[in-house]
Amino acid sequence: MTTAPPAPPRPLRVTALAGGVGGARFLRGLLTALDETGTGRPAAELTVISNTADDITLHGLRVCPDLDSVMYTLGGGIDEQRGWGRSEETSGVADELAAYGQRPTWFTLGDKDIATHLVRTRLLREGLPLSEVTARLLQRWRPPFRTPVRLLPMTDDVVETHVDLARVDPAAHHGEAGGRRVHFQEWWVRLHAKVPAERIEPVGADAARPGPGVLEAVAGADVVLLPPSNPVVSIGTILRVPGVREALRATAAPVVGVSPVIGGAPVRGMADACLAAIGVPTTARAVAALYADLLDGWLVADQDAFDGGPALRVLPRPLLMSDTAATAALAAAAIDLLLELRAAGARRDGDRASA
Amino acid sequence: MTTAPPAPPRPLRVTALAGGVGGARFLRGLLTALDETGTGRPAAELTVISNTADDITLHGLRVCPDLDSVMYTLGGGIDEQRGWGRSEETSGVADELAAYGQRPTWFTLGDKDIATHLVRTRLLREGLPLSEVTARLLQRWRPPFRTPVRLLPMTDDVVETHVDLARVDPAAHHGEAGGRRVHFQEWWVRLHAKVPAERIEPVGADAARPGPGVLEAVAGADVVLLPPSNPVVSIGTILRVPGVREALRATAAPVVGVSPVIGGAPVRGMADACLAAIGVPTTARAVAALYADLLDGWLVADQDAFDGGPALRVLPRPLLMSDTAATAALAAAAIDLLLELRAAGARRDGDRASA
Repeated sequence: MTTAPPAPPRPLRVTALAGGVGGARFLRGLLTALDETGTGRPAAELTVISNTADDITLHGLRVCPDLDSVMYTLGGGIDEQRGWGRSEETSGVADELAAYGQRPTWFTLGDKDIATHLVRTRLLREGLPLSEVTARLLQRWRPPFRTPVRLLPMTDDVVETHVDLARVDPAAHHGEAGGRRVHFQEWWVRLHAKVPAERIEPVGADAARPGPGVLEAVAGADVVLLPPSNPVVSIGTILRVPGVREALRATAAPVVGVSPVIGGAPVRGMADACLAAIGVPTTARAVAALYADLLDGWLVADQDAFDGGPALRVLPRPLLMSDTAATAALAAAAIDLLLELRAAGARRDGDRASA
Repeated sequence: MTTAPPAPPRPLRVTALAGGVGGARFLRGLLTALDETGTGRPAAELTVISNTADDITLHGLRVCPDLDSVMYTLGGGIDEQRGWGRSEETSGVADELAAYGQRPTWFTLGDKDIATHLVRTRLLREGLPLSEVTARLLQRWRPPFRTPVRLLPMTDDVVETHVDLARVDPAAHHGEAGGRRVHFQEWWVRLHAKVPAERIEPVGADAARPGPGVLEAVAGADVVLLPPSNPVVSIGTILRVPGVREALRATAAPVVGVSPVIGGAPVRGMADACLAAIGVPTTARAVAALYADLLDGWLVADQDAFDGGPALRVLPRPLLMSDTAATAALAAAAIDLLLELRAAGARRDGDRASA
């Protein structure tokens, strides 16, 4: 008589929301932490729900900067210096597009990167949804971690963040007078968010349907992470897709976030300009308040510690993702807090402030 | 009292049909010859009617090899060594497409070249006809000749030459067993035309409408040139567009061609494989017979001279386009023959053999 070997313990289901560069770096640290052995943490599997609202069509190519930043970063193809785009990149196509007088020229499209957009654009035109296209692109990258990774667009529908620019003195803004609506990328990349935004609108978000697996990844998660991505145009936009915020409120999994703000300034990027547009101060506490209805734990810099009350565990930790080791340590702290909250059954009804 | 200055003489209207590499080189020589001063020839303007039947969609990009070969060659962007594609080209996109497992890989798409295809594809998707797209692309190139140049696709409709491959021994053809239909480019580029073609069909040609200005350029021409392009898949395909052959028969302009064959072998390329597919011997005389209903003059190599009878002036000349000077001399001989035929009113009804 033989007995079946004991079933292996089910992997810990980790679900993370993510924007671009900062989110991607955090996720790489997270996978590094999850891969570590001898930590006492269970084996895990990671599902990433990616923002797609900064997607843009340029020269007929569908460009998904956040999906690509995650894909390239996890797959080892990222330009580490810039934090986005491909390493050892060339600009043969872009230089020639400029010679043809094609606009815009302010969005950098490297040659290797263009290959990604060509594949994506062709598959989308053939009728495949972005989620399926993304899964196929990821096959080329095969993130080299023990922990399996899925990358899900927040939606297969087209959502594009637009920005209403305030009127400004053109002399002070390289000829830009403002008073018009631009794609988020034009505000972010061309104007470096230096012209104030009067309004930031993820056009199409309210009518978008969550992508395949998105709601399930939240509902079925054991733990949920909010990396230090932009709270307005990255995490905020994912939360605008109908059903996602509700799923995060309803899930049994504890939700822990990492502040994208240290001491009144964004860790990276220009999140302060986005927060200003929605009238929110650039503080770790104010950003936590944006997630008040769904957040159980919040990692902040030492100087930003505050009392979160019974509903929110505020944990001071070094937030700078200066290298992979520091990032992995930060992610490990977030995971450990999540495991602790989960073990304590911390997520009970009424545990959190209502939105 | 003043008198108006005499009107300048109208430029000589030269119309040429053209395929890719060979046609493009001949046209560059032609423009060089037309630009020469002190020759006694009148100032001219050139209209090129380009084959589009070797066009192909690759990775979602619309590629027009013959139009581009003419455009790059006349505009100074051609790779002189290969005779096609851009000079100082790189392969960042193509290498990455291969890394994504994208097929085919046998068609070389350089980065600079891809920029052309991106612009073209976008404009076509926006609804512009190929003729307008081509005119816009040509603005970037501005051929540096005194003689103005127009480049007209033979049609704005989609025509693609397909080839029925004979069944062959895969061991002798790198695994290709034949017995199937492929795009002309696959036969030409991947198989180097080494698998015999049972049939060559310009799909869509019979229903295509001549592009804007095409019939007018033939009817209104002072002289018409057939460069030494492939008589089957380049010139032959242009002649298949309804109305074009008829216009060439009906025009008052004399028509002079340059043989693409020297002593039983094609000057360049694999025209013999195409001629074999339609059961025509690879001789200068047999190619002339393909044009019998419209040809007034025929430049051949010395060893290929034959008596064309009263309808066809056969002129032996060195045909090798070894450099621009040799090509310009060949083109000048063709132009001078055309001017002579025109002055003699050689193109009278009944002057030519009927088709």
